[in-house]
Amino acid sequence: MREAADRFHLCTISEVMDPSQIPMMMQYVDMFQVGARNMQNYYLLRALGEIRKPVLLKRGLSATMEELLLSAEYLLSGGNYNVVLCERGIRTFETYTRNTFDLAAIPVIKKLSHLPIIGDPSHATGRRDKVPPMARAAVAAGADGLLIEVHNDPDRALSDGAQSLEPSTFTQLMAELRIIAPAIGRRVA
Amino acid sequence: MREAADRFHLCTISEVMDPSQIPMMMQYVDMFQVGARNMQNYYLLRALGEIRKPVLLKRGLSATMEELLLSAEYLLSGGNYNVVLCERGIRTFETYTRNTFDLAAIPVIKKLSHLPIIGDPSHATGRRDKVPPMARAAVAAGADGLLIEVHNDPDRALSDGAQSLEPSTFTQLMAELRIIAPAIGRRVA
Amino acid sequence: MREAADRFHLCTISEVMDPSQIPMMMQYVDMFQVGARNMQNYYLLRALGEIRKPVLLKRGLSATMEELLLSAEYLLSGGNYNVVLCERGIRTFETYTRNTFDLAAIPVIKKLSHLPIIGDPSHATGRRDKVPPMARAAVAAGADGLLIEVHNDPDRALSDGAQSLEPSTFTQLMAELRIIAPAIGRRVA
Amino acid sequence: MREAADRFHLCTISEVMDPSQIPMMMQYVDMFQVGARNMQNYYLLRALGEIRKPVLLKRGLSATMEELLLSAEYLLSGGNYNVVLCERGIRTFETYTRNTFDLAAIPVIKKLSHLPIIGDPSHATGRRDKVPPMARAAVAAGADGLLIEVHNDPDRALSDGAQSLEPSTFTQLMAELRIIAPAIGRRVA
Repeated sequence: MREAADRFHLCTISEVMDPSQIPMMMQYVDMFQVGARNMQNYYLLRALGEIRKPVLLKRGLSATMEELLLSAEYLLSGGNYNVVLCERGIRTFETYTRNTFDLAAIPVIKKLSHLPIIGDPSHATGRRDKVPPMARAAVAAGADGLLIEVHNDPDRALSDGAQSLEPSTFTQLMAELRIIAPAIGRRVA
Repeated sequence: MREAADRFHLCTISEVMDPSQIPMMMQYVDMFQVGARNMQNYYLLRALGEIRKPVLLKRGLSATMEELLLSAEYLLSGGNYNVVLCERGIRTFETYTRNTFDLAAIPVIKKLSHLPIIGDPSHATGRRDKVPPMARAAVAAGADGLLIEVHNDPDRALSDGAQSLEPSTFTQLMAELRIIAPAIGRRVA
Repeated sequence: MREAADRFHLCTISEVMDPSQIPMMMQYVDMFQVGARNMQNYYLLRALGEIRKPVLLKRGLSATMEELLLSAEYLLSGGNYNVVLCERGIRTFETYTRNTFDLAAIPVIKKLSHLPIIGDPSHATGRRDKVPPMARAAVAAGADGLLIEVHNDPDRALSDGAQSLEPSTFTQLMAELRIIAPAIGRRVA
Repeated sequence: MREAADRFHLCTISEVMDPSQIPMMMQYVDMFQVGARNMQNYYLLRALGEIRKPVLLKRGLSATMEELLLSAEYLLSGGNYNVVLCERGIRTFETYTRNTFDLAAIPVIKKLSHLPIIGDPSHATGRRDKVPPMARAAVAAGADGLLIEVHNDPDRALSDGAQSLEPSTFTQLMAELRIIAPAIGRRVA
């Protein structure tokens, strides 16, 4: 993964699930991701507070916005200020989508905190055709970034294929986002 | 209300809570609104299926998207095809916002049905400063319209003041929406 | 229904969905039931506050305990003090059971109010084999009564067959309840 | 803790939050507890599957009953069959109680699995006066045990005082449970 990233000048991000994985991962990843299930794994958060690489902290399935900020405090209090939050859908009674994308978390978190927050419409909806509208909505709500799964042949993907975009859809989505971003004083690279 | 509307060439919409109110309201309102608490009041829905004025049907606090469509069927099967649906937030464990604005309902409903669907960011968030970002998000997600509360002095409003926009904020929001709408092939009047 | 009840010295209870049904039903039913979907149908509640027959008010699918009590106020403030509340399950993310039987509502309501509260394990679980354990739990939690569906051939019932008990299971359950009730200073008739 | 337990012939149970704590804890505790926040910490579960001391696995705040069983599989597949499950309340929209005690999980888990399941009314309600009725309900629903917090001076407890019983209330509760247990063919020690 590191080799591929270096060759194409990309950054790598990978999920960390236990403190014991940190030393090895330090050599290969540019950013550590804490998954929704580990948002309140305080042992892991404390260990990631000790390092100086950025951490992407995903909101837990039933975590309130306040609890997400409290979990981020474990990283910040250890001295690691490179923290990015991520809204990825909460668990509700609605079953049509995999989760309920709680987009209000974006302006709320931005008001309560200085930390950047991104949206993950792929995990929030679990359905490929719902990713573009929810990605546009996240940007319009003020998200600082997006986490979108893309696969060159999503129906044969090893994991998360049902929510992965085809490259052509992704290209079109990016064009739409370039129109929306200026409405909130932003630019899409 | 009818007089004011006529003078300024506006339309009137008012909430109907019981079938007995329909005959009187027929003379004054252009559109009937069915509130979230009455989404499954089948007596009321059947009576509104008999008339030929448009009906705005709001999603119930704990109604699934499918149940919203099933309630609309009560209107359609009576022969009233002028039905507009409205996503206005669902009840979840999150307490920072009054409800959780389930914006994924917009692309889902639009795929499953031919009915127009609008968003109500005022009731969905219950907080004035969260209305503009959620209004932008609703349009970016493909909403066919918005229901936004505006008051010329919201802190002294008789009801729903906390979620009502000041006119100047509303004007700025409309400017932002005019930028966003073209991204999904729409125009804001 | 009235004839059958009179012949066997039973009471009749039937669901009322609209104020217009009340006069006719007054002649036949001993108790009016307000279903979960109508818990916040204030037109209906006000009309039932005017009569002097008992009303069974079921908790809405996403109503808080406090909202259930506030709805009861509509009946009480009209002068109808014959109100019985009913916990019948709330809507949560759990899908194995039809609803989540919120039994804590029983001691909470009993503390906040003088009104009797009964439990409905049939609707709360939607599964026949879960009705007896949840019925026992409701009595142990202090419920003033139970609403249990029984059918002499539940697999051929016109409605709610999946949650209806066979008469023999019901008889066994009653024997178990007679053991439990004394633990909370009660007796089962 | 070990010394106190040995002196009074008690067993010790303590929460484990990270695999690195296991070797040290092996010397002192009779049972390991996995808290609700770690129910899906698969690293921890795999490590506990390797040992041969009993594990108490608490249901996550927004975990389905099925997910609780799937987490237990991580322990069982490692060869540790000494697993006890625990229902301790799920997160819903209701705010009067800290969580919603999903007692239906008890008969459901007992049907789907051979594993014992206990109830934790202290954490499920978060209110001292609701613990006895919910403890009785759990036993009546078929729970194999209870986890109840008791403190000789709960108002001055260092943690969880609001949900801790006074010893005299606990004694009375045990007397009530001795009456209820026979209804389901059980005996309280």
